[in-house]
Formats: sequence, C-alpha cells, structure tokens
Amino acid sequence: MISFKNDYSEGCHPSILKILSDNNMQQEAGYGDDSISNKAKELILKEVNSSSSEVYFVSGGTQANLLVIAATLRPHESVIAANTGHINTHEAGAIEATGHKINSIETIDGKISGADVQDFLDEYTNPPHMVKPRMVYISNTTEVGTHYTKSEIEELSKVCRGNDLYLFVDGARLGSALTVDSNDLSLEDLGQLTDVFYIGGTKNGAMLGEAIVINNVELQIDFPFHLKQHGALMSKGRTLGAQFLALFTDNLFFDLARHANLMAAKLAGAFAAKDYGFLVESSSNQIFPILPNGEIERLEKKYGFYIWEKIDNENSAIRIVTSWATTIESVDSFIADI
Amino acid sequence: MISFKNDYSEGCHPSILKILSDNNMQQEAGYGDDSISNKAKELILKEVNSSSSEVYFVSGGTQANLLVIAATLRPHESVIAANTGHINTHEAGAIEATGHKINSIETIDGKISGADVQDFLDEYTNPPHMVKPRMVYISNTTEVGTHYTKSEIEELSKVCRGNDLYLFVDGARLGSALTVDSNDLSLEDLGQLTDVFYIGGTKNGAMLGEAIVINNVELQIDFPFHLKQHGALMSKGRTLGAQFLALFTDNLFFDLARHANLMAAKLAGAFAAKDYGFLVESSSNQIFPILPNGEIERLEKKYGFYIWEKIDNENSAIRIVTSWATTIESVDSFIADI
Amino acid sequence: MISFKNDYSEGCHPSILKILSDNNMQQEAGYGDDSISNKAKELILKEVNSSSSEVYFVSGGTQANLLVIAATLRPHESVIAANTGHINTHEAGAIEATGHKINSIETIDGKISGADVQDFLDEYTNPPHMVKPRMVYISNTTEVGTHYTKSEIEELSKVCRGNDLYLFVDGARLGSALTVDSNDLSLEDLGQLTDVFYIGGTKNGAMLGEAIVINNVELQIDFPFHLKQHGALMSKGRTLGAQFLALFTDNLFFDLARHANLMAAKLAGAFAAKDYGFLVESSSNQIFPILPNGEIERLEKKYGFYIWEKIDNENSAIRIVTSWATTIESVDSFIADI
Amino acid sequence: MISFKNDYSEGCHPSILKILSDNNMQQEAGYGDDSISNKAKELILKEVNSSSSEVYFVSGGTQANLLVIAATLRPHESVIAANTGHINTHEAGAIEATGHKINSIETIDGKISGADVQDFLDEYTNPPHMVKPRMVYISNTTEVGTHYTKSEIEELSKVCRGNDLYLFVDGARLGSALTVDSNDLSLEDLGQLTDVFYIGGTKNGAMLGEAIVINNVELQIDFPFHLKQHGALMSKGRTLGAQFLALFTDNLFFDLARHANLMAAKLAGAFAAKDYGFLVESSSNQIFPILPNGEIERLEKKYGFYIWEKIDNENSAIRIVTSWATTIESVDSFIADI
Repeated sequence: MISFKNDYSEGCHPSILKILSDNNMQQEAGYGDDSISNKAKELILKEVNSSSSEVYFVSGGTQANLLVIAATLRPHESVIAANTGHINTHEAGAIEATGHKINSIETIDGKISGADVQDFLDEYTNPPHMVKPRMVYISNTTEVGTHYTKSEIEELSKVCRGNDLYLFVDGARLGSALTVDSNDLSLEDLGQLTDVFYIGGTKNGAMLGEAIVINNVELQIDFPFHLKQHGALMSKGRTLGAQFLALFTDNLFFDLARHANLMAAKLAGAFAAKDYGFLVESSSNQIFPILPNGEIERLEKKYGFYIWEKIDNENSAIRIVTSWATTIESVDSFIADI
Repeated sequence: MISFKNDYSEGCHPSILKILSDNNMQQEAGYGDDSISNKAKELILKEVNSSSSEVYFVSGGTQANLLVIAATLRPHESVIAANTGHINTHEAGAIEATGHKINSIETIDGKISGADVQDFLDEYTNPPHMVKPRMVYISNTTEVGTHYTKSEIEELSKVCRGNDLYLFVDGARLGSALTVDSNDLSLEDLGQLTDVFYIGGTKNGAMLGEAIVINNVELQIDFPFHLKQHGALMSKGRTLGAQFLALFTDNLFFDLARHANLMAAKLAGAFAAKDYGFLVESSSNQIFPILPNGEIERLEKKYGFYIWEKIDNENSAIRIVTSWATTIESVDSFIADI
Repeated sequence: MISFKNDYSEGCHPSILKILSDNNMQQEAGYGDDSISNKAKELILKEVNSSSSEVYFVSGGTQANLLVIAATLRPHESVIAANTGHINTHEAGAIEATGHKINSIETIDGKISGADVQDFLDEYTNPPHMVKPRMVYISNTTEVGTHYTKSEIEELSKVCRGNDLYLFVDGARLGSALTVDSNDLSLEDLGQLTDVFYIGGTKNGAMLGEAIVINNVELQIDFPFHLKQHGALMSKGRTLGAQFLALFTDNLFFDLARHANLMAAKLAGAFAAKDYGFLVESSSNQIFPILPNGEIERLEKKYGFYIWEKIDNENSAIRIVTSWATTIESVDSFIADI
Repeated sequence: MISFKNDYSEGCHPSILKILSDNNMQQEAGYGDDSISNKAKELILKEVNSSSSEVYFVSGGTQANLLVIAATLRPHESVIAANTGHINTHEAGAIEATGHKINSIETIDGKISGADVQDFLDEYTNPPHMVKPRMVYISNTTEVGTHYTKSEIEELSKVCRGNDLYLFVDGARLGSALTVDSNDLSLEDLGQLTDVFYIGGTKNGAMLGEAIVINNVELQIDFPFHLKQHGALMSKGRTLGAQFLALFTDNLFFDLARHANLMAAKLAGAFAAKDYGFLVESSSNQIFPILPNGEIERLEKKYGFYIWEKIDNENSAIRIVTSWATTIESVDSFIADI
C-alpha cells in the first residue's frame, strides 16, 4: 500500500537528522536563542533580503496562523479569507478561539484577488455593528493546489495597503508554490509585498516546523510574548532551528519542493493522457483528477488517497498529494495501474 | 563554560534519534494515529495501569497546561495554584488568555496541601460575584525543587473529590520527582489519585514533548478538538511518539531522571560540606544553595546558573539544575571549584 | 420628520414609568433578587407554563445572545445560524469574541429549516479538524421580517434533539412574531420545543430589557456567574424587572406587538395597492417594499427609513419598521404621501 | 427593617424619572446618538474641562471595567490592581474572561501608591515568560471606603507615564470620593492625570449607568466597536443619557454624594462616641465599625448590613453603607439603637 494521502507521511529529510545528531550534546541557550536557530534565521533572511524582517520558528501551521492573527488584531478586528481557507475550515475554530471573526469570500479556485477584497469592503460598512476587517489571509499554494502569481500578490498588496489591511500569507505549502514551472514569485517578493508570511517546513521535508517571517516592524513588537502565551515557544528551540538550517542549506528546501511538483506533474500527465478531467487546474504537489467510481475503487486497493468531491453519480474527484519523499518507483507503479 | 542553568541545554538522548532514524522513511498516518505513537501510549498506560486513561502527546509544558485547563473548565471556573506555580508566573498569561482566573495560594516551599485548599474554599464564597474554583493545579517537582509524597497527593485528592474540584499535576519534572530517594509515589498512584497529569519529556531527555494522561473519562471527551484548536496537534505526531517510545523502553525515563537527581545530590553535598545553607530543601535536580556574592561572581566565570533571590546584602541563593546529560566530570569540576 | 427607521425610537410604554415611580423609594435586594423582578418572572413563567424553566433579565439582545452562547458551548463547539442572523452580521463579532465559530447557512428569507440543518451536518464531518456544531440559533421574527410557524419549530426541534444540538431562539422581536395573524406558535410551545429563547422588551415597549427563558435545566447551572462575568448582572435589577412586570400585566406585551403589526399591515396594503412589490413577504412589523428611486428620494424628505438593498438601476427595497408607538396618524400621513 | 447594606437599594432620584417622562414619546436616534445623551455628555465634559476627552455611557461597573481593559490591552498585557480591587475579587473573572491577567498588589487600606507600582515593576521582569504590565487600575473610593488625594493620583500618574502604563480609575463611587470633606481632587484633575476613568451613576442616584471618560485619544479609537461587541451599546441609549443629564444638572451628582457621606459621618461619630474602633479609617459612605458579636446580633434584628470580617472571637467588623436615599430618620433611629 503506497500512500498519496498527504505530504507528511514520512519522517524528515536525512540531512535534518544529521544536524540534530551532530549538535546533539552541544549546550545551547533555550527558547530559540541558540546558535543553530540563529544560523537558520540568517539563511532565511538572506533569501528574503530584508534587513528589517524577523523570523520566528513554531511547530505547525495552525499554530502559526492563530499566533499571527491573535498577535496582530485588536478584539473587534476580523480577517478576510477564502471560504476554502485553512483557517476557515480545518483549524477547529482556532482563530475564533482567539476572539476574531473570519469574513469568508466565496471562491472557485481557492484564491482571492485584490478586486474580491475591494468588493467585499465596499459592501461591508456598518460600524460599529459589524466587525472591522483588518487583515487578508491567503494560502499559497491554496488548499486546492492553485498558486498565486507575482502580479496577483502585488494587486492584493496594493488593495491591502490602500485600505489599512495587513496581508498575511499562509505558506504551509510555500515550497511547492515557489517551484511550480510557471512561478514568478520569490521569497524576496513576499518580504516586500506582505506584512507577514510563513515558510512551511512540515510539508516539505521537516519533521516539524514553520518559519514565520514578519516584515512589518510594528507586528514584531512583543511577538515573543505571544509565542510563549500560546505554548509555542519551545524550550529546545534548537529542534526547530535544525530543520530550517538543513532546508536552507544548498537549496534543499526548493529542491525537495520541486521534486514533489515533478512527481505530481507526472501523475497529472498520466491522468490527462487517459482523458480524465480535473476538478481544479493545478501545477503543484496536489492534483484533483476526476475518475469513474469503479476506477477509484480499483485504485484504492493499492494506493492511499482521499475522495475529495462527488461530481455526479458515476464520477468523483480524488486528491493525490506527492511530497519530497515520493519515489519515482511509486509514481511509475501508480501510472502503470491507471 | 559549563551550564547548570537548566535541564534543556542539550538535544536529546541518542536512543530517541535512533528511533527517529530507524522509522524515518516508513509511511505513517498523521495527527498522532501512527504506529510509533500508539506503541508509546501503550507503554505509558502499562505504567499507569489504568485501562480507562488516555494519553495525548504535545510539544511543551505551557501548551499542556493551557490545553488541559481550557478544555476542562467552563468560562466562570478558576484553577487554584501555588503563587509560585508555573501557570501563575512564567507562562505569559497563557491560562488567563483562555479566559480563566488563577486563584493563587501563598506558599514557602512551592507546595499546597489539601488543608490549604480547604481553607481557601472556606473563605472564598460569594457566588456569583466570585469565580467558581473547579480545579487544583500542582507541580511535581515544584518550581523550587520540592516534591510531593504519596500521602500528600492522597490528601489533596480527597479534598478535591469532596469539593467537586479536578486535580491536575504538572509533571514537567515528574521524572525527577518519582526518582528522588524518599519518593513513594508512582505513575499508577497518579492514575488513581488525579484527574489528569502529564509526564515531562523535554526536561528529561526528549528533544520535545510532554505526555498528557487523562484519567477522568469525562475530561477525555472531545479532547482532540482542543489539541487542534490550540495548534498542538502535530501532523507528524510520530515525532512526539518517538520521544516517549524511547523513554518508556527499558526504564530509560526513570534512569535519566535518577541520574540528574544523583548529580544534584553530589553538588548539594559539596555545598553542605562547606556549611552553605539552602533556600529550600530539595532532593531533586534543582538545588538552591545560598552563597556569598563574591563566591557567586567567582563561580559564574566558569559555570552557568541563575541568581535566584537576594538573601541579604552579602548573600544570594542561586539555582543549579542538573539533567540526564550532566556529566560526572562537570560535577566534579564544579565541586572542585566550590 | 416621522421616523420608521426602527422600533426603538421612543422611550417606553407609560405603564413602565408608572411601576418605576410607584416602587421607586422601596428598598429592594440587589442583583435581580427583588420583589419586582420576582413577580415579573412569575408572570412570564405562567405564560411559558413550564415549572422547570428559569427567567433571567438582561439589558439587550446582543448581550442575551453572547451570554447564552458563551455559557452553553465548550470552546470547540459552534453555533449554526442563517447567514442573515443577527449574531452573524450586526453584533461586532460578539460571539467570536467569546471564542465560538458561527457556521452560517445561506437563506433567502432569513429562516433555516430542520432539513437545512440536517443537510449541513451531513456535509460537515471532519473531527477534530472542524469545529463541532452544538447549537442552532434562529431569530423570530427574522432580520427580514419573516416568522416561523409552529410546525417549522417542531421540525427544527426534532432535528436538534436527534443530533445533540441545542435550539436557541432570539426573540428580540418575538412579540411581533407571536401576534402576526397567521401565527400558531405560543410561549408555551417555545418552552417545550427549545432549550432557551428570549423575549424582547426593548423593541416592544420597554426602555431596555430582554427576558432570557432557559428551559433546559442543564443550561441553567451557574448561569448567574455568566451574567456577572459579562457585566450583565445589574445591581438595580428592579429596573429590568419593572419592564416585564408592566409588559406581562393585562397582555400589554401582546397588545403592543399586535398594534405594531397592524400599522405595518396598513402600510404594506398601501404599497401593494400601488402595485409595488416586496423584497420578502412579511406580516410582521418590518416590511420591505420595492420602490422607484425617485419615489424613495421624495418620501425621504418627510419620513425616516433605511434603503435596504439595490434591486436594479431604477428600484430599491426600503425597510419600514413600525412599533408600539407608531400612531395611526403617522401611518395615514405616510399612506397619503405614497 | 432598614437596610444599610448598600447604596443601590432604592430606585433613582425623582429628577431622573422626570426627564425620562418628559422626553418619553420624543423620537430619538438609537445607540447613544440621541439629543439627551449628547446633552449629558456635554455637561460632563464641561466638568472634566478637556476638549479631547470622550464620554461613553454603559449600564454598570463590571461592564465598564471589562470594556476599558479589553479595548485597551493587547493579549499579553496585564493590569495591576490592589488585591482588594473590584476587578480582582467581585467580577466573576470578567477581566480574565477577556484574556488578561491581573497582577495584584497587597494592600491594607485598598489603595496602591506610585511607589507600590514602581516596586512591583522592578521585581517583575522576565519577558517574554511573564506578562507585560500595561495598566494600573485603582478604585476611588476604594472597596473599603478610603479615597485618594490629588497628590497620590499625581504620583501614580507620574509613575505610570514613566513606565508606559495606562492609569484607569474605577469611579463606581467617585461621587463619594469627590465630596468627602478632605478631598482636593476634581473631575478636571482626573481628566488630566488619568487615561480613562468612569463616573458611577448606579451607586449615586441613577437607576443604572456609568459614564466612561476616555482622556487618552489613542484609547478612543474604535471604542464603540467594543461597546457593541460586549453587548453594552444600548439601542435606547437615551435611557442612560437621561440619568446623567439629571445628575449633572444643578450639581445633583455632588449633592447626592455629599448627603451620603454626611449620613455615614453621623453614624461613624456615634460609633466612635461609644469607643468602638474601625477596621479602616473612612470618611466616605462606607464605614466599617468593629462591634461585639452580641451587639451585632441585636442590631441585625432591625437593620440590614454585612458582617465584613471576624476580628477576634468576640468582635467583628461590619460594613455600613449610606446613600443619596438614606434618610436622617433612619440614621437617627440607628444611632439611638447603638
């Protein structure tokens, strides 16, 4: 049984285990102020190319989302997100638990545009009876595998800055987004166009860890208090630092993501060759082919994946996810069985 | 420079790295439902010897504390703790951030007794103007290195059950508590006498991780939702499982803690031999000798430790912490320098 | 200028001022335990005809909503509401501020049916990643003037009880709902079919005040703590009690609401006679005629009302609200001007 | 039976009922933007003599406290208060429910000084593990009847401004404080020396209502959203406005408070004449004489008051509260019975 269910089925890239082993008995300061974390932060900031940005490591994506939003918004302020946004669907109410409403915008492809935001704001005006939208949250790649172009982020950034909204990018799968063939966005762009974003480690080869990059200096104020208050400040911060030290050495982060995309592209090509359609067009490591139900049942016997959505009585879309650890043998085997 | 500042200066016991490596490329289910975590839970429950208890792994102590308290209490309910309790002092308001008041009881030795709780309740009666105390939180060992005897926990348990209060034990340093020479308390006792407790991994050889053991079946209801909501449900739960699989194999957890206690005892003996007093009597891995300020300055040049409290103009108490990783050579060197 | 903007433009029915004056210098117990409040509660419970229900007075509707929801739900539980529901739109995030997500259901007429709820539940199943729906919130009358029939509430009640959901009715305009001509629902029905509902005073002749009726005895536990914690427990609770003592003496509550409905019906008839359509069919004290924009501009010079929604380039729907205080002269004048 | 239990046993001063009656059928805008409230705000701001201050009316003291604190502090910030402070004892955890820790300072007389605050800050320094104190809360008069002099408030103000702390005065009994014989503090002083304070109506002749005065313009930003979010924005805001319109016409507010103080002084004089001591020295409308238990039992048969604290086996302190409504006949009767 080979799983294509997600991108976190395996442990981590061996180079991470090596760093952990190599530094294991070295005494280090606690709470993220260790030499390993500091080195990892440097490498990330070099890519972001912003002298005023700050990096904070946390263990997971939901934690990153709730921390950034809780630390940034005042109690009456809300965050705008796609209806499919992770914070709106699969975080067990984490954002509301910190007191904030999510204003959701309906989307087909998981993306929201600057125009979507502006339209929403134009309609949403009844202070103080309605909450005050203060942040836009997007995911890149999105929850349905699509990604943003540089000009789309530029447009969002412009609308946000024109309306006193912070722009926050959930990058749990940012590696995949930045390495799709058609991508023209860089970490440096994100450093300039967003107030805060994070770089997902967990879904791109780390055993845990996301790197929050805060570009807006105002949002950096007292951020460590929030880490502590939400139980996100690990005493052995070195564990998190080691993940990103490995990933940002010799382009490993990008290489792993590119591999995942390539594996997905091969699978997508095979489905397309069989004339199967897709729920959403995606070039990232998540694809959503539409298959006859009988075919799905047959494939399920050898491969793990989720049935994503019923299309009609005969067909359903499935979700296939590849990762840094997906082998070409697994992909070839799957293709042979399609 | 040798640090005695805390018990989380090194990485982790090598056997943990070995398990992580050995299982690294094995595909596993996410969110803690993997074979490694399940095996670790089994080993813990065997020690607790309670068929109805449940184990949940989280990354750190503050996270464990806020999760247990937030999941358990209704909005108007409070938790009673020693004024020195970690939740009351060093968690950046994590408990209040989930909406709950901490009713603190003044202590000298960091411990609270059943009688302390009863006295507090007898005075604290003005519903609905005052909050409703519903839980007692204790740390074992405490923040000042003391530990509870079995009869003390029995008395607390009795008072709690007689007053509809939950009993919760913060075991960030439970290993040390359960292996001091005079200890008569076991994990099995905690399974019977408390509603919930946790077993600290981070401060006893793990790279991260605490194992929350919920004995009261009512408090188990929907607990995973809370893990998710607070960003504590790691997608690669196997990382946490591996820590405890190693620690609960061949008594490693207890052996590491016993070693830490032994190293502290040697140091304590050396201070006592020099007729130095102690701020608190402790047999655990934290000791608080009182030294002349000049002596402190001299020792600080070669050893790391915290100055804990000014005693008078000439003397201060320092905190020395040993761990599973403290070498006999470091201790002998320190003793030679005293 | 005559305002039809809302049902809270005037002070209160004179009989309330009379009770306040008559009892003014009488010494009474504080915090709602006074003889006036107790008498008012008795009168309400007689109408509800439930010996196990309890009544709590609060100052306003948003306060009632947030109190009931915060006191009832555990942190990971959510409330289902119509997208137009007051808690979802016009309470400045009050529910989210207590930590809870609102799952909204799209509606045309402001109502949700038992089938809507069941359909939602059938799709919303991914514990513990999604929140756990635990309550259904409806408004009667709704925010667009529609009302529920007895069988509709029965169906909702059945679906709720079958799915472990609480049913909560926001009755800010319950008086209007219970006195529309076609109504077949009673306070006694609400006592039997819902877990909790409230009777709006503010919009039906009181100077302030809503009466929360909790039928589910489990939800009564410790409710006064929540009143206090949210600043809703008035020390001079008699002020609130006096409102409902007046309203529930000699059917005043129903008479005032019936008058408001009658005034709206007269206006609706006049619009219909001119062949104007309506955004929503409503028999309550809120009507939404669709008028040419020129006509709206003309009427706005003499009458206050809100432009509710643009219909097309030439027409808009306006909202007209009548109340206990709307005079027949104002209505006749408006009709003459249509 | 005559009650000296509190200052909210009666309804309200007749002049309030008169205003409510006189304006009753006048149509007014909702949510506090009515002509009555606006006039009342003007009168208050004239006393405060600050062109940049803003006034917001709310229904009660706990509501005022939680609103001001929740609207002002970021999630990791705390408020410093006397251990006897109302927010720390009798508000059912209202402040913690909005997410904030209260750092309490031990006091004898219910007051905290600038030096107390400075001493606390000097010891409380472990960011980001400890919360960040950001506000000082004091009550005037305090919960034990004492009051602050102008120089004491000046000292507090100086320490607060020097340490980036907001100064907030709970004035639930501010009328009494500002009219004790030895008082040298004015509303104008409070406008200059504090960031925010409120003027209590409920305990000084209003049927409900506190007037929050925000002097710090930064804290005014978006305050109405918070009012709405906490259910404090009454649709018939005129009800609250009328209270303060009456109280701030012809010095009524001060006259009523002075009367209450005078009644208490007469009673205090009578106790002193009998050589009874007092728990705390107070010149305000709350006094705490120490009486033999037998005497207390005898007096309890005719007069209502609270037994405040056991002094020894034979004696207890009782609390006697007078108000605007306390008659000279009641006081004379009590004195005769002492």
